[in-house]
Amino acid sequence: MRFNIVAKILGLIVGVVSLFMLWPLAWAYLDNSSEVGPIFSSMIIGIAISVILLFAGSNSTSTDMRPREALVIVGLSWLSVSAIGALPFWLSGALPSYTDAFFEAVSGFTTTGSTVLTDIEANGRGILFWRSLTHWLGGMGIIVLGLAVLPFLGVGGRQLFRAEVPGPVPEKLTPRIHHTALLLWGVYLFLSALEAFLLYVGGLSPFEALTHTFGTMATGGFSPLNGSVGQYNSLYVDSVVTIFMFMAGANFALHYRLLARRDLNAWWRDDEFRFYLIVILGAIVTISLILFKNNIYDSVSKTIRYVSFQSISIMTTTGFVTADYEQWPVYAQSLLLILMFIGGCAGSTGGGTKVVRLMILLKHVGIELKTLIHPRAHYSMRLNGKTVEWGIVLSILAFLSLYVIVFVISFLLLALLGVDLITAIAAVAATLGNIGPGLGNVGPMDNYADLAMPVKWILSFCMLFGRLELYPMMALFLPDTWKR
Amino acid sequence: MRFNIVAKILGLIVGVVSLFMLWPLAWAYLDNSSEVGPIFSSMIIGIAISVILLFAGSNSTSTDMRPREALVIVGLSWLSVSAIGALPFWLSGALPSYTDAFFEAVSGFTTTGSTVLTDIEANGRGILFWRSLTHWLGGMGIIVLGLAVLPFLGVGGRQLFRAEVPGPVPEKLTPRIHHTALLLWGVYLFLSALEAFLLYVGGLSPFEALTHTFGTMATGGFSPLNGSVGQYNSLYVDSVVTIFMFMAGANFALHYRLLARRDLNAWWRDDEFRFYLIVILGAIVTISLILFKNNIYDSVSKTIRYVSFQSISIMTTTGFVTADYEQWPVYAQSLLLILMFIGGCAGSTGGGTKVVRLMILLKHVGIELKTLIHPRAHYSMRLNGKTVEWGIVLSILAFLSLYVIVFVISFLLLALLGVDLITAIAAVAATLGNIGPGLGNVGPMDNYADLAMPVKWILSFCMLFGRLELYPMMALFLPDTWKR
Repeated sequence: MRFNIVAKILGLIVGVVSLFMLWPLAWAYLDNSSEVGPIFSSMIIGIAISVILLFAGSNSTSTDMRPREALVIVGLSWLSVSAIGALPFWLSGALPSYTDAFFEAVSGFTTTGSTVLTDIEANGRGILFWRSLTHWLGGMGIIVLGLAVLPFLGVGGRQLFRAEVPGPVPEKLTPRIHHTALLLWGVYLFLSALEAFLLYVGGLSPFEALTHTFGTMATGGFSPLNGSVGQYNSLYVDSVVTIFMFMAGANFALHYRLLARRDLNAWWRDDEFRFYLIVILGAIVTISLILFKNNIYDSVSKTIRYVSFQSISIMTTTGFVTADYEQWPVYAQSLLLILMFIGGCAGSTGGGTKVVRLMILLKHVGIELKTLIHPRAHYSMRLNGKTVEWGIVLSILAFLSLYVIVFVISFLLLALLGVDLITAIAAVAATLGNIGPGLGNVGPMDNYADLAMPVKWILSFCMLFGRLELYPMMALFLPDTWKR
Repeated sequence: MRFNIVAKILGLIVGVVSLFMLWPLAWAYLDNSSEVGPIFSSMIIGIAISVILLFAGSNSTSTDMRPREALVIVGLSWLSVSAIGALPFWLSGALPSYTDAFFEAVSGFTTTGSTVLTDIEANGRGILFWRSLTHWLGGMGIIVLGLAVLPFLGVGGRQLFRAEVPGPVPEKLTPRIHHTALLLWGVYLFLSALEAFLLYVGGLSPFEALTHTFGTMATGGFSPLNGSVGQYNSLYVDSVVTIFMFMAGANFALHYRLLARRDLNAWWRDDEFRFYLIVILGAIVTISLILFKNNIYDSVSKTIRYVSFQSISIMTTTGFVTADYEQWPVYAQSLLLILMFIGGCAGSTGGGTKVVRLMILLKHVGIELKTLIHPRAHYSMRLNGKTVEWGIVLSILAFLSLYVIVFVISFLLLALLGVDLITAIAAVAATLGNIGPGLGNVGPMDNYADLAMPVKWILSFCMLFGRLELYPMMALFLPDTWKR
């Protein structure tokens, strides 16, 4: 581990993110609000830390990067950025406890959307804008952002990119990683602008259009309204948000091909996208039937509207709420719980274990069952027309196993701290999967404010483990990482 | 699929098991009870079905067996034996619904120990003896029993043995499968005789000593008493049962080496046994500390006694009860829930996913994490001093994945039928793992009687899937199996 290279890149990432505080600062300034001071101070502290780190890493001249250094940089970047991102909440008094402020910032950057704010609308637009902006920055990734805006970060960019972008085998759109990062952020920016425009046309103020766009495109789920998206009670808003949540949960490389190369079949040709679509449609149809049979809503259209919104919100791990799904029958809740674990596609801004990993698991089990009946036959696994190597299958199964292990350990820690069984299971599922609301005491109509301090710290780490797909966070805890 | 070979072996297995009804018949006869008629009729029906099957399969002259035929024979044997084993409960009126009678018989043979009887002691000794005897027959396995008592079953014995004996790679003690089966049943018989003797010396009647022995050695959990083993409130009985449950949850091949070859180190040299011991001791110490801290029992010795009994009972998937663990803190319950999933060792009578599979999963994740830090190094997995091939690791991970899939599907079916979340999770865990009592409405002080009929059928299949380690039951549902 060479600490100077770590410090240098960490300094750059912290600096870039801190500069983004200018945006909420502008809102606060426009409103002439008392939030100007706290946000400004936070930005200055962030920049100061950035400068110190850059100074500490200034003697770094290496032109290569070891894999474990990349992991450590990614893990520490997210931790530092969250620690600094918590300052506006803390210094402004929006969240007087630093634990709460850190939880909210982690929840923002990791695009989880679990909140500890009890009266969201009591805050000014500066704080609320920063809260939603953390989603947007974390959605496509702060490292990818760094790679996009700082071309000279090229050293080790490939490893950094791999360690942050979700999915087992991140797709490079172009040979140069700086260029790939730029294209991904370009598509992200374009879709965000489109959604914000559509919401604005639908009657939302620029502030509300932007914050809800951030929550959607990052599959985050923070809303500046106490009643989330449901507060508008508008079919138009629900529809726009539903469509863009669905897009945000799909692979951005596909969107790029569709938009930039006018490859209209890009979506349908992709095995993962088709599976993603089938799972979502299957869930919507099943849950709608159940709800309709139980007379939960008074019309078919209302049922489909709320079920589509909520299913896509949960599966893409956004976490926006338009309906209190805890009032739905147990079966509908159970299906939502399963969707939480699956999550979005590889290369999306969605969380969970990712659709492609579930597909490979199912294909592997299918091959095992075929081999059971025909032991002498040889089967190979194919995805998008290519053979999947057994080494990849072994890695994906290791990832899923580790996911379960992290889940079980977190669940046991929560149980040790006295959290009841359903709340413990749902809270870990909702934070590790970066969804936001869970079931029980952390359900769609509750928030995470009442949990004990140590529980909030554990769940903060669950969010980071989930967003970074375990390994960069795991690496921080392995003694081997820190050997010279 | 050649149906004559299937019918022939099925006929033999059904015949052997039906003849075992002579034993409960003798108890009923001794008591001059009204159960004589029903048990006798059940036995005659069983023998008649056996004769019809043998007749149907009499033209079978094949000297080989295809793997899928072995799977089908094992799956159908367990289904048929359960269907016939249900007759005494049904015909005697102990359980007037055939669904309940089938559930109880499956629960017996699969050594689950979940019961739908509400007042156990209201039944005569004939029925109760049969109920416990199903445990004992299913514990070491009805196919292994067939292989032991019918040497001419040698055709395909190896495949049949593999399909029934728990664990990824069943151990052959001798080159001849008939001989291995005989030795395993020999060790099982010896340990059972020893436990029954010790319980008899401790003041239990021969009937109670035998029935509790069957429940222990098979890791079953049926007791002829309403209050299970806890009703004796005897330190001696608790200790004997605890020790023999622990033995029954370990690999019987090790017991054979210890007993027959006087290999005193057989246990300690085995990686799986050591891990099994460490997990159990770890659970006992942790739960004891939690209970002691929460002042659940008034003395250290009482705490250790109840915790040891209950932890070993759950982990070995026996399901005997001496304490209402739903009154224990949530953390203790969560740990018991985890133990349910692990289960006994390979080659034991215990259920669950087996200790060795968990070990291989953990080792695989460990190797993946090491590779993360040192990507160019090559690691191999070792168990008991031998290298574990990647093919085995892939198979074990496929098994664990399929276990989760079966779990999720069963859980969703229960939720669809309106079972609440905790009860659904715990009922599937307790039946798929062959434990018996769960949490919620199927907790240690409740039983499965109040569940809806379709729920009981689903849970019956969960028990069979769990006992046969999924594949023989899966094979029955795959269209490929039935192709000629």
